[in-house]
Amino acid sequence: MEELKNQSNGQKKNLVSLNEYETNWKKVVERKGIDLIDITTPPNANKEIAIQAAKNGKIVFCEKPLATSLKDAYEMLEAVEKYKVKHAIFFNYRKLLAIGLAKKLIDEGKIGEIYHMRAVYLQDWLVDPDFPLVWRLQRKIAGSGAHGDLNAHIIDMARYLVGEFDEGIVTKKTFIKKRHVLVEKDELETGLVYKEKSEKKGIVDVDDTTIFLTKFKNEALGSFEAKRFAPGRKNHQRFEINGSKGSIVFNLERVNELEYYSREDEKKGTSGFRKIIATDPDHPYAGNWWPAGHIIGYGESFVNMIADILNSIAKGDNPNPNFYDGVKCQEVIESVEKSIKEGRWVKVK
Amino acid sequence: MEELKNQSNGQKKNLVSLNEYETNWKKVVERKGIDLIDITTPPNANKEIAIQAAKNGKIVFCEKPLATSLKDAYEMLEAVEKYKVKHAIFFNYRKLLAIGLAKKLIDEGKIGEIYHMRAVYLQDWLVDPDFPLVWRLQRKIAGSGAHGDLNAHIIDMARYLVGEFDEGIVTKKTFIKKRHVLVEKDELETGLVYKEKSEKKGIVDVDDTTIFLTKFKNEALGSFEAKRFAPGRKNHQRFEINGSKGSIVFNLERVNELEYYSREDEKKGTSGFRKIIATDPDHPYAGNWWPAGHIIGYGESFVNMIADILNSIAKGDNPNPNFYDGVKCQEVIESVEKSIKEGRWVKVK
Amino acid sequence: MEELKNQSNGQKKNLVSLNEYETNWKKVVERKGIDLIDITTPPNANKEIAIQAAKNGKIVFCEKPLATSLKDAYEMLEAVEKYKVKHAIFFNYRKLLAIGLAKKLIDEGKIGEIYHMRAVYLQDWLVDPDFPLVWRLQRKIAGSGAHGDLNAHIIDMARYLVGEFDEGIVTKKTFIKKRHVLVEKDELETGLVYKEKSEKKGIVDVDDTTIFLTKFKNEALGSFEAKRFAPGRKNHQRFEINGSKGSIVFNLERVNELEYYSREDEKKGTSGFRKIIATDPDHPYAGNWWPAGHIIGYGESFVNMIADILNSIAKGDNPNPNFYDGVKCQEVIESVEKSIKEGRWVKVK
Amino acid sequence: MEELKNQSNGQKKNLVSLNEYETNWKKVVERKGIDLIDITTPPNANKEIAIQAAKNGKIVFCEKPLATSLKDAYEMLEAVEKYKVKHAIFFNYRKLLAIGLAKKLIDEGKIGEIYHMRAVYLQDWLVDPDFPLVWRLQRKIAGSGAHGDLNAHIIDMARYLVGEFDEGIVTKKTFIKKRHVLVEKDELETGLVYKEKSEKKGIVDVDDTTIFLTKFKNEALGSFEAKRFAPGRKNHQRFEINGSKGSIVFNLERVNELEYYSREDEKKGTSGFRKIIATDPDHPYAGNWWPAGHIIGYGESFVNMIADILNSIAKGDNPNPNFYDGVKCQEVIESVEKSIKEGRWVKVK
Repeated sequence: MEELKNQSNGQKKNLVSLNEYETNWKKVVERKGIDLIDITTPPNANKEIAIQAAKNGKIVFCEKPLATSLKDAYEMLEAVEKYKVKHAIFFNYRKLLAIGLAKKLIDEGKIGEIYHMRAVYLQDWLVDPDFPLVWRLQRKIAGSGAHGDLNAHIIDMARYLVGEFDEGIVTKKTFIKKRHVLVEKDELETGLVYKEKSEKKGIVDVDDTTIFLTKFKNEALGSFEAKRFAPGRKNHQRFEINGSKGSIVFNLERVNELEYYSREDEKKGTSGFRKIIATDPDHPYAGNWWPAGHIIGYGESFVNMIADILNSIAKGDNPNPNFYDGVKCQEVIESVEKSIKEGRWVKVK
Repeated sequence: MEELKNQSNGQKKNLVSLNEYETNWKKVVERKGIDLIDITTPPNANKEIAIQAAKNGKIVFCEKPLATSLKDAYEMLEAVEKYKVKHAIFFNYRKLLAIGLAKKLIDEGKIGEIYHMRAVYLQDWLVDPDFPLVWRLQRKIAGSGAHGDLNAHIIDMARYLVGEFDEGIVTKKTFIKKRHVLVEKDELETGLVYKEKSEKKGIVDVDDTTIFLTKFKNEALGSFEAKRFAPGRKNHQRFEINGSKGSIVFNLERVNELEYYSREDEKKGTSGFRKIIATDPDHPYAGNWWPAGHIIGYGESFVNMIADILNSIAKGDNPNPNFYDGVKCQEVIESVEKSIKEGRWVKVK
Repeated sequence: MEELKNQSNGQKKNLVSLNEYETNWKKVVERKGIDLIDITTPPNANKEIAIQAAKNGKIVFCEKPLATSLKDAYEMLEAVEKYKVKHAIFFNYRKLLAIGLAKKLIDEGKIGEIYHMRAVYLQDWLVDPDFPLVWRLQRKIAGSGAHGDLNAHIIDMARYLVGEFDEGIVTKKTFIKKRHVLVEKDELETGLVYKEKSEKKGIVDVDDTTIFLTKFKNEALGSFEAKRFAPGRKNHQRFEINGSKGSIVFNLERVNELEYYSREDEKKGTSGFRKIIATDPDHPYAGNWWPAGHIIGYGESFVNMIADILNSIAKGDNPNPNFYDGVKCQEVIESVEKSIKEGRWVKVK
Repeated sequence: MEELKNQSNGQKKNLVSLNEYETNWKKVVERKGIDLIDITTPPNANKEIAIQAAKNGKIVFCEKPLATSLKDAYEMLEAVEKYKVKHAIFFNYRKLLAIGLAKKLIDEGKIGEIYHMRAVYLQDWLVDPDFPLVWRLQRKIAGSGAHGDLNAHIIDMARYLVGEFDEGIVTKKTFIKKRHVLVEKDELETGLVYKEKSEKKGIVDVDDTTIFLTKFKNEALGSFEAKRFAPGRKNHQRFEINGSKGSIVFNLERVNELEYYSREDEKKGTSGFRKIIATDPDHPYAGNWWPAGHIIGYGESFVNMIADILNSIAKGDNPNPNFYDGVKCQEVIESVEKSIKEGRWVKVK
């Protein structure tokens, strides 16, 4: 098979062919003919790869969270700025159809001055006490529990839709503190290594739930809750924003719907939350997909994101969201953790 | 105890006292001092009482259905007209808050030309095959099954909101055709007679479900379904009306809510079904009850109805709905039954 | 008209007739022939009436909140205990059908160990900046804003369903700080005094919103929010309780429905939140009302409450909820206010 | 670029390369190296291509509807049987996650004996009277209107979940009978031909809505409605099935949810429609996609379908659904059309 780019661009050298692969990331970030590095490793590996990629002049994409500490996040942002490479972070929920519409309504002033955002991100996969001590439940590997995993998403959503955080106060809890340890077994026939639940129990040292109150810099209030212990809530990211002119409600389990209340309708006696199915051709992103009313799934948010990022790069702009957003999210995450330790309101940088 | 009216009106004769009662209806309809007769007997008793009450110059209220046959219904309407008495029929669902709002939106032209009404009235109390052969399942007593009982309500709703019926075609079915007969037992100690399920089974000769399609005189189409065999549907009267400018949806199990879709909203990209909680002070009837958002129950529809009827009478008008509406509903009921026999479309008078 | 009780009880003295009235409360609480005093005055009048009624041996009912301060509430509880009279407080939401079912499920262990309650009580009647400075927006009259008015309800609900509060941390906010002052006008023709909005603006010194996090004594976590600034939320008291075996959700705007998730259903692959319409004959209170599926309104919760209270008294028991519950609710209200001042977690007594 | 199969299979002849294309379908169906023909042409072209493909021994996939007449459909089924080629039809809605679960529940007997299916497929794109006379509104091109387009889907769903149709009776209507004709224009600069709305109006000779009642061979009843005139209903395929043991409800606009009511729950007082999010790993198809609660879109139903079809072929079985299902669907479509003409109940073959 010939080199891919050859077909479209002509005579470039060092192009990568479709059946080439490499398991040493250091060679990848140095490889000529590669323009863009997409980092999807566990968070603790992000920093080194990103900095090396930037040094080599590559465009850098990174999964969220940007890093496992604010300090690392700052270094990564510094690197992409120093080497003047474009960068992006995969807060893909920004690219859902209903969120695109929410952003549009807010930007057009339809919600007015924002008074409040209440957001939850609830899941239930930890409620079974026999669920074992996987890596996500160990601080040294995962960094944090529900907070870093789930709150990170709704913090980014809040920054996107409401604005920057000012200060916060928090509580967290680990409901089940000991779980069965996993031990490695070799499967002799296949040579594979897999993990098996043992009788021994180990400590869960991350949060099962983290809840915090916040004040935004624009004086709105917020409440945020991440939890992996809410039976029946499979992937329940739900938020409501109340403003001086209206309200909006979003629920990730009904991903194409946006509920919208406009105080304008009150004069006519017909006010009520509207269930907008955000798949009309003039809704954000929707025109690129199916006819109205055909549901766009979670996976398609990545496609929308890639399209946005590549369009930005094609125009010479830096994509959004990017490492800056990763840093700002991390600032909130860490301030909240400080508040847990100190039991009082803590300023976000 | 003194006579009630005495307190407010002064010197009237023949007034009825609060602790007076009478078990012979013939004496009641002749009793002086009574202005109004409210008939809540089983349907087969309605005609004679209503006609005698009218003859005696009483205002006549009647529960739905007006009669067990169209012929009887005509005679009743004739009587109240001949003796020039005011009359009303208790289609109380017209007086629910959400229905008041639906009527208002339609009258204001918000729905435009009506294209369709699809209505169901689903219950589930007959789905258990051990449920006995109560009187409602015997034609000679009940007249009809789900059709006369449940379709009557949505037929009246259709006449109120959409207009007169033109023709119809139908199917019906009795899913469980034999049920345990009830036999009377005397309870020796108390002297009470009660009924007990026996081993013997008898024939169910009314419909468990009746479904019909219709064309309205104004060219709208309709579909109507009454069923007592829909597990989980306790009192599920739900209808949707589609018109050239919008749609409305009502569900009796969420009795204060009206869903409303306006095509006007499409220009702004924010169209969607609005869930209007019809309890704002300016919604029909709502100002007489609690503050906005406090739910008004099924029972209160009777209160709204009585208020409307008494206000009409106070102004010297005949109340709405009245015997005429009872007759028109019966015309549809009987046309539908004719269509069952003939297996073809049948004109409604 | 004869005295009412005469009809049923025979020869009692000092009975009260139906057309007797009295505007001096002191005479009422001393009046022989009265067994029970129901206090529905503004909160600042409750204490004196309740204590005098108790002194005179009357049964005492009181609207919520019991008092405008915890100190007053203690004195009231002391009085009814000292004079050994029965007492009740009108937290009527406990008596809604869906709440009756929620309590039953929790008591039966269907929800398991409770991990979390998240509750909001949202309304929107203050979002209009031209809404005037009514008494509810002035601390000296109302005591507090959304907190005392709305949080009181969900605090009581939490005590009923989850248990006693342990500690809390809070934020509150007044979004619109100045509003038009009302001035009294005499209407010359009628002699009535009414209030009119003036150009002058005065200070709103109560909270428009109060949000707090809490830990319960049984280790569950809670979040509570009262707000009068949530467009579209008319009377939106909504809570979700997550436990080790399941979850429940209630919304006062759909007052007869309880959503229930049982982890039991997971084994069969059919788990999901069930929408239970709590009006079946065997649901709490429902058997006293209409057939299944006929909606019971907000108003009927008072009827259920009175029935419960009178049944308790008939059996010689003290009713529930009572002054003790009023005191416990007030303890939480005041602890939360203390936390506002101190900006840190505060223990509830 | 080398030929694709070459990479994996080695030395096969006549393979098709990725940059080969052909605009003459006759050459395609004869081309060696092609195993499978997927027909996505307008319905009137299906027959000839399918028969020629079968003659050439190709596997044949066909979009729905199989043909524009029952006669053509029979010929196509005959051809694939005669030439012993495998065949499939793209009723892709069978492959949605929630439908997979519905089928499973019915097959396991959870719904019991089926009493009723009520299905609607409502859209609103024709309600605007200025929408032009596109080909879908002309019988000679489209064959039929809402009926063939939308009812076809719910007829197939009914055959999949309930069983074969026995007889039907119907009504249909064209609400807006004349629309602006489109005329072709050449765009000089690009050479493209596009269509423009003219002042002239032409006749709409297909149905805007078709509604029919049916009896199934297993004695269940059904009601089916297709409509392009329901404001607010974008792609509202919704059906409810009631059986002796429970009910299910599906709505294509909430594509991953299945509502399920089990009479089993009634004993415990906790019966209610469960909203099952059919994305758990053990739900049909779900294990191949995202973690629980992540929404799978409409598009993914095609992927599920292809997987099922290829798995069938790999096992040597004929895929389901296939041309037989296309024929059976067409039988219902045409019987319904016969009933329109004759105004009476008509037997389905």
